[in-house]
Amino acid sequence: MRKKQGILVIADGMGDRPIEVLGGLTPLEYAKTPSLDFLASKGACGNVHPYAPGVRVGTDVGHLAIFGYDPKKVYTGRGPIEAYGDNFELEDGDIAFRGNFSTIDDDFTVIDRRAGRISSGTKELVTTLNGMVLSNGTKVFVIALTAHRVAVVLRGKNLSTKITITDPGTAMEGEKLVKPQPLDDSKEAKNTAMLVWELTQKIYDILKVNNLNIQREKEGKLSANMILLRGVGIKPNMPKLSEQMNIKCACVAGEMTVIGVAKMAGMDTFMLEGFNGEYDTDFMGKAKLGVKLLKEDKYDWVVIHIKATDLAGHDNLPYVKVDMAEKIDLMMAYILKNIDLNDCYVSFTADHSTPCELKDHSGDPVPTIIAGGDIGIRRDDINQCGEKYFKNGSLNNLRARDIFMIQMDLMGFTKKFGS
Amino acid sequence: MRKKQGILVIADGMGDRPIEVLGGLTPLEYAKTPSLDFLASKGACGNVHPYAPGVRVGTDVGHLAIFGYDPKKVYTGRGPIEAYGDNFELEDGDIAFRGNFSTIDDDFTVIDRRAGRISSGTKELVTTLNGMVLSNGTKVFVIALTAHRVAVVLRGKNLSTKITITDPGTAMEGEKLVKPQPLDDSKEAKNTAMLVWELTQKIYDILKVNNLNIQREKEGKLSANMILLRGVGIKPNMPKLSEQMNIKCACVAGEMTVIGVAKMAGMDTFMLEGFNGEYDTDFMGKAKLGVKLLKEDKYDWVVIHIKATDLAGHDNLPYVKVDMAEKIDLMMAYILKNIDLNDCYVSFTADHSTPCELKDHSGDPVPTIIAGGDIGIRRDDINQCGEKYFKNGSLNNLRARDIFMIQMDLMGFTKKFGS
Repeated sequence: MRKKQGILVIADGMGDRPIEVLGGLTPLEYAKTPSLDFLASKGACGNVHPYAPGVRVGTDVGHLAIFGYDPKKVYTGRGPIEAYGDNFELEDGDIAFRGNFSTIDDDFTVIDRRAGRISSGTKELVTTLNGMVLSNGTKVFVIALTAHRVAVVLRGKNLSTKITITDPGTAMEGEKLVKPQPLDDSKEAKNTAMLVWELTQKIYDILKVNNLNIQREKEGKLSANMILLRGVGIKPNMPKLSEQMNIKCACVAGEMTVIGVAKMAGMDTFMLEGFNGEYDTDFMGKAKLGVKLLKEDKYDWVVIHIKATDLAGHDNLPYVKVDMAEKIDLMMAYILKNIDLNDCYVSFTADHSTPCELKDHSGDPVPTIIAGGDIGIRRDDINQCGEKYFKNGSLNNLRARDIFMIQMDLMGFTKKFGS
Repeated sequence: MRKKQGILVIADGMGDRPIEVLGGLTPLEYAKTPSLDFLASKGACGNVHPYAPGVRVGTDVGHLAIFGYDPKKVYTGRGPIEAYGDNFELEDGDIAFRGNFSTIDDDFTVIDRRAGRISSGTKELVTTLNGMVLSNGTKVFVIALTAHRVAVVLRGKNLSTKITITDPGTAMEGEKLVKPQPLDDSKEAKNTAMLVWELTQKIYDILKVNNLNIQREKEGKLSANMILLRGVGIKPNMPKLSEQMNIKCACVAGEMTVIGVAKMAGMDTFMLEGFNGEYDTDFMGKAKLGVKLLKEDKYDWVVIHIKATDLAGHDNLPYVKVDMAEKIDLMMAYILKNIDLNDCYVSFTADHSTPCELKDHSGDPVPTIIAGGDIGIRRDDINQCGEKYFKNGSLNNLRARDIFMIQMDLMGFTKKFGS
């Protein structure tokens, strides 16, 4: 079977609904996107369900599906993804949480969920906690991530994810930390609930007297004296893409969740200086790196992720979302100028829709293109990029996992079923 | 997540095939339906598979799917639905049959499957049977439903649905009642087959000497001296919609099967005077009640059911089916006049197709619309309601359960999968 390369640009949360100030168009329909329009004309298009019709997904689940996995089978929680994002390899039996440095007072009332969005010194704080051993010998790993974020892994016997979390929830400042409770009758759940409470108390005992925190208080800043825990999960049972499809994959991104999912999938990940999950990420740097990785011929499939479109949806900023789409179009212009569609499939999709009106993810399907050279793919005769132009495309109403398989098949990485 | 209300009109058996006397159009295409046409223009359309492509479903299974359930998982038989329809709550271990009052002679030959469509006195007949205890202590509940119809519930130990039925089938008048046989080797099946035969004999012994039946015979009417049993099932394992989606639902209908399914789903049901399953049901009364229930703000989702379109299919009366579609269009006119599409999604579908030519249900997908305000939904640019206009709609080839999830997602009642 002849093989070709592929590149996929993922515009996070790109899908939207008609917006009044945009004359009833979506941001993608409104944006000037000559390169995406050209791409659409060179391939198959459609609005694609991230998981299933009407099902809202998070970024983690959306990317698992884009990378070909069934999230119902492999998703265990956000904690493990955060740990993988920092190259922490979970072992069987481990449980992993995502967490926030936060501020509590002596009676464990939450003062600030993010310790005043602490941005420096967290690596130092983490060293005072990492490696701690709890009463029954359970070992604790604490990994500093971006800003106030951490991952916490417990390694020991009889651990379970069936416990309630300590985190009192987003809008709950002023409430007390919740003592974890077992969610089933197993000894593992009881043991874990007890251990997480022991850990919570130990974290406070250690962090409240930490020099950096004492210094922060002197400066009038909030002490990062607690870690709120949530998103508990176990090591996912996920074959790497290299094992499953015999393919070499790279992921270019500036956001740790996507990096974490990509690493779980066995991709090499590239997060250079200037690549971030914000509006000012280095769009063109990502495009250039993507093209470079393909040209060096080390990878069969390169995925580039942009978070900014999702942010604009959450912030209900339609014109900013238009602007981000146009920046992505410039990336696509660079890719199309430097990549021959006859040698390499170029695709475009989103992990979910984030309609500005909702300021949240929705279950709306996401605009998707798979483009190839003149003889490489059946074309749809669609010449404009946008949700409403794609509804009669040949990919319409397929699901993200189908789109993965179609790309793999076009690129020559699928096995024949039968003979 | 912001929430909106929704209303769904279900035209039972609406889907059809091209009909010669209608110039090759379906009844829905032929009918003058300005309000449904407008609705189509304000939303997403498509022909939707009730369960899966090519699968013919009954009204019960079709409605389970419209209400978001997987019929393969929750449907156990028609008996339980009939029992729920009359507010009889099944317990674990019960088995429930649907049944007909019928007429047999002394050697158990069926004379009339419906006891001359007996329409009065069945409540009195039922009181002589209800509460009966069989030889091993099994208790019998008999519930009178519309006309000749009843539900029969057995409550006791070691009951099974794995038995053949006594009912010799629709076209079998002149044949003898069949002694039930176990369908597997279990003691439960053997026990139940024996009990159902004991029950059948006892029913005859009691009913043949009943005064009402003696009176009927004197008047030259058929004696309602037997109950034919079929559709056996157990209590379905079905979480209520309120538990599953945290939504308050109401169902406006005039037909007991739909009422039964709605009650199983935990909906409040409304069957007022004049609401029936016939051609002369109070169409506008149903529309007015639906709107009222929404305006009172007690419900998030209101479903209105019309049976008449299905009847016209079964009776092969194309022009009557057209007429029923036009009556439903007037209901839609009232709804659209009194409901703001920006606050409330308005949807239209059918539980299955009943092509006039077939006089029976078919596996053809059903015409479906989900409409919203100008910014509430992506629109398809389809301006006419009917099967042939919907084939390029964005909902085409989705399934009834997808349509449920899409409505729930638009209304803001779905949970995010992942984070």
